[in-house]
Amino acid sequence: MRNTSKSLREIISSGGMARVMAAHDPMSARLVEEAGFDAIWASGFEFSAALGLADVSLVSMTQHLDNMRRMADRSSLPIVADIDTGYGNAVNVIHTVKQFEAAGASAVVIEDKAFPKVTSLIAGGRQDLLPIPENQGKIEAAVSARSDPDFLIIARVEALIAGRGEAEALERARAYEAAGADMILIHSKQETPDEIESFIATWSGSVPIVIVPTAYPQMTEARARAHGKIGMLIYGNHAIRAAVTGMQKVFAQIIAEGGIETVNEEIVPVSEIFRLQDMDEVKRIEKRFLR
Amino acid sequence: MRNTSKSLREIISSGGMARVMAAHDPMSARLVEEAGFDAIWASGFEFSAALGLADVSLVSMTQHLDNMRRMADRSSLPIVADIDTGYGNAVNVIHTVKQFEAAGASAVVIEDKAFPKVTSLIAGGRQDLLPIPENQGKIEAAVSARSDPDFLIIARVEALIAGRGEAEALERARAYEAAGADMILIHSKQETPDEIESFIATWSGSVPIVIVPTAYPQMTEARARAHGKIGMLIYGNHAIRAAVTGMQKVFAQIIAEGGIETVNEEIVPVSEIFRLQDMDEVKRIEKRFLR
Amino acid sequence: MRNTSKSLREIISSGGMARVMAAHDPMSARLVEEAGFDAIWASGFEFSAALGLADVSLVSMTQHLDNMRRMADRSSLPIVADIDTGYGNAVNVIHTVKQFEAAGASAVVIEDKAFPKVTSLIAGGRQDLLPIPENQGKIEAAVSARSDPDFLIIARVEALIAGRGEAEALERARAYEAAGADMILIHSKQETPDEIESFIATWSGSVPIVIVPTAYPQMTEARARAHGKIGMLIYGNHAIRAAVTGMQKVFAQIIAEGGIETVNEEIVPVSEIFRLQDMDEVKRIEKRFLR
Amino acid sequence: MRNTSKSLREIISSGGMARVMAAHDPMSARLVEEAGFDAIWASGFEFSAALGLADVSLVSMTQHLDNMRRMADRSSLPIVADIDTGYGNAVNVIHTVKQFEAAGASAVVIEDKAFPKVTSLIAGGRQDLLPIPENQGKIEAAVSARSDPDFLIIARVEALIAGRGEAEALERARAYEAAGADMILIHSKQETPDEIESFIATWSGSVPIVIVPTAYPQMTEARARAHGKIGMLIYGNHAIRAAVTGMQKVFAQIIAEGGIETVNEEIVPVSEIFRLQDMDEVKRIEKRFLR
Repeated sequence: MRNTSKSLREIISSGGMARVMAAHDPMSARLVEEAGFDAIWASGFEFSAALGLADVSLVSMTQHLDNMRRMADRSSLPIVADIDTGYGNAVNVIHTVKQFEAAGASAVVIEDKAFPKVTSLIAGGRQDLLPIPENQGKIEAAVSARSDPDFLIIARVEALIAGRGEAEALERARAYEAAGADMILIHSKQETPDEIESFIATWSGSVPIVIVPTAYPQMTEARARAHGKIGMLIYGNHAIRAAVTGMQKVFAQIIAEGGIETVNEEIVPVSEIFRLQDMDEVKRIEKRFLR
Repeated sequence: MRNTSKSLREIISSGGMARVMAAHDPMSARLVEEAGFDAIWASGFEFSAALGLADVSLVSMTQHLDNMRRMADRSSLPIVADIDTGYGNAVNVIHTVKQFEAAGASAVVIEDKAFPKVTSLIAGGRQDLLPIPENQGKIEAAVSARSDPDFLIIARVEALIAGRGEAEALERARAYEAAGADMILIHSKQETPDEIESFIATWSGSVPIVIVPTAYPQMTEARARAHGKIGMLIYGNHAIRAAVTGMQKVFAQIIAEGGIETVNEEIVPVSEIFRLQDMDEVKRIEKRFLR
Repeated sequence: MRNTSKSLREIISSGGMARVMAAHDPMSARLVEEAGFDAIWASGFEFSAALGLADVSLVSMTQHLDNMRRMADRSSLPIVADIDTGYGNAVNVIHTVKQFEAAGASAVVIEDKAFPKVTSLIAGGRQDLLPIPENQGKIEAAVSARSDPDFLIIARVEALIAGRGEAEALERARAYEAAGADMILIHSKQETPDEIESFIATWSGSVPIVIVPTAYPQMTEARARAHGKIGMLIYGNHAIRAAVTGMQKVFAQIIAEGGIETVNEEIVPVSEIFRLQDMDEVKRIEKRFLR
Repeated sequence: MRNTSKSLREIISSGGMARVMAAHDPMSARLVEEAGFDAIWASGFEFSAALGLADVSLVSMTQHLDNMRRMADRSSLPIVADIDTGYGNAVNVIHTVKQFEAAGASAVVIEDKAFPKVTSLIAGGRQDLLPIPENQGKIEAAVSARSDPDFLIIARVEALIAGRGEAEALERARAYEAAGADMILIHSKQETPDEIESFIATWSGSVPIVIVPTAYPQMTEARARAHGKIGMLIYGNHAIRAAVTGMQKVFAQIIAEGGIETVNEEIVPVSEIFRLQDMDEVKRIEKRFLR
């Protein structure tokens, strides 16, 4: 019923670069769509944060799945689902990929860390990687599990995050491409694009690259496109950071002023929320069918 | 295990006025707590909006319950749960109150609309009220269902919202107090406090009043306290409005600039999200127990 | 992805009678399939009972939906979903029908009771019916909400259950057919088939009838087929009754004997559960992908 | 609110042996209680089977948690929760133990397998164990996470299942007792009690033993009590096996006979299900509060 995988595949096949913004609930997903991004990143980090939990495999597969399904129900953009490590081994990966595809995702990203994982950008975090053959098996399992050939299996390489160096990152990327991955997500927490750009320059595979430039914001879309090998640029955590910023500011102002008189001017009116909830559609249905 | 009901009862019994801010997920609940509010409003409107759905009884009791439980798990403030109409008749109310108390709420608000309800502030919305005796039975049922005597049953009067006038609003409020309600929430969508202040002036009951001044922001906390009868002031939708405002602005800027270089300065850093997720606690546990 | 609606529509369009057995979880659904029934009845009564709750609208729409989706994931038979009253008015019906179709149902049954409902077969139960035009609006809303034309909207007439007589039952059935219902479920709690057979004999509509002969077991499949107007015969509660019977007997025996030595011979071995869980498939996946 | 942990601790502290029967949903839990068992085994195997899924870590922590909570809501017996491996490392264990205690469990069983696990009794299954110090850290983490000192942490030793021999089984059991485990569950799939009885005879620890005699049914309660060291005997899968047996038989009979005339005599009547659903309580509430 959702036919969004095709559109994402098309952007990437034609040499384009999809701009993908994180979301943590259906409302943020709708705002991503309205803003003009090409796809939604169903971010494990954002959803964990929205639940007030650390991004260390505490949020369950079914919680992520429910959230993804709810986002798919309420937006028409393709969704790239962050399924962490696939929640276990190849058996779990097959179960997970089937569930996410059925729930409306257009792509999944599987990272080569051991379960339970630790979020990538934390300073001094434990970053255990799976042996390459084990993760290859998981990628092959994921590929075998999809039913729509336009559904994308994206292999995420954490070798740079784990401090293993470019050679291992390239070795892993090649192995995952050989296993059938449609794209390679190469992640970095260096504060400049050097590390990523070196990897991209060296990359000779035939599948496109995905990047998540949180740590190295100098990597604009224009600069990314110029490399000619990047098929997807993910803004990985800006929805929750924007939401938190907005709420902290407004809450502090209300506490300081002891009321909402002035803050009312600085936030969207209730009617804007009604619009985003499709209250007009409710009224239309009531008029047509309520007797 | 959560012992927050006592503290809310104490604020109100001592003649104080609790300032209660809406939240729609555990993260917003944590921000409400950090900002210094006295309690969290587990708002049906906010949670529906976060799910991208209209606030017309589409979100199920168990979805609200799960969200409330998750907020209770991740904050130590008392939670005032918006249970709409109680999701049905007195049988449903008893089931619902037991579930919400067990899940960690300190209070529930039950409104006297017919199920399925329509959100109160929408222009031209259908606003069907239950007959007074039927809703009295529901309030009595709610009172009979609580196990902790400090757990608050708050009856919400929608007569002003439905255009039934002050006389009916007062009659309903008296009837619900007689049925055992601990507080009366009187709601209004007039754009000035006149209607509410007239009701409060006339109110001669012995239980305190709850107000939700979204439509009449002139009602500051100071002005509300001056009435001497208001035990709770709820900011009903400012968390989701602040979050939406923050995300719309940031998304537009990223689209406009084709990157995150400048926007990075305007939102909280990733490390602030780590703090709110208790990543330090994760590291402490890893150090102590991981071998 | 599930393409089962077509097959159910075909049975009925060709003048056949689908035999539909109740299930309350994916395991019972698999057993329904293996036994040779034509479809699964995702029974609200059975699922409420499995949850230990009375069938009076305590179990939420999303709980029913999740259970239905899990059954659809684990069986290939068409599923006829019991959506009670549609969980509210026409707005709720539209939301519900879309969700159930997306989750893999092939049909929904909507009854003309008021929400919250009381289970039909209880002696002396409250049985409030909606006015005919209001329920017609709900049937029209359901029809408008489906996307697959083979998805069946079945209108359930509770007039006989509510003691309103055959004339009103026929009037309601005609009104719901006019509103677009694909089938009419006529329910009865009389202990013989007389009431139902009289209704069927008088029915002159062009859509087929659905019956649920719990109370009148004399109505065999052969006798039902002989009427020539019955398109579906639902066994409404025999899975949970069989499961309860089996567990009560086995539990009593273990308690009486202080062990499992003899009971072991009377129940299926663990290996039969492994088979029903597809453990062979897990081993196949492990062999192919685990490294 | 549930105060059942005390009663389980008391049985075991006084040298008694609790008889614990598996359940997979609230209905089976109620039947366990009515039959006279001392506690409910919230079995991962049974719940996976009820969901039609293999018991190989496909069912998520939150699914198990929801099911456990629903059982706790609908029965007054203590519940011993099967939390598999704790769904990850020590960080996950702490999160899981807190959630299960809050949801009403009286005990958790944590096994020393690697995540994702494979069910223990399957022939030729992959059975990977954690290094002893790693699992000790998990047991210590679990002990640190409980808030009620009567809540039991039970360490499950899978060394015999994995073919590692008695010496390693004893070494592991001692290490887990040292880490604070309240009981040791020693599992075996030998078809006679020899292996288990040898372990028990050699066991010199001060905490009691838990056994699950599925594979060796000769181990009656009397024989188990005679050892003087067994504090809990779990019937691990007899509820689902009894339910499946009951449904297979009844479904086959209905298919064979083309109706329910004779089968009706062999299963409990609908009124028995009403009783188990507390329909009387609904009628009492309606009479008291519905107006």
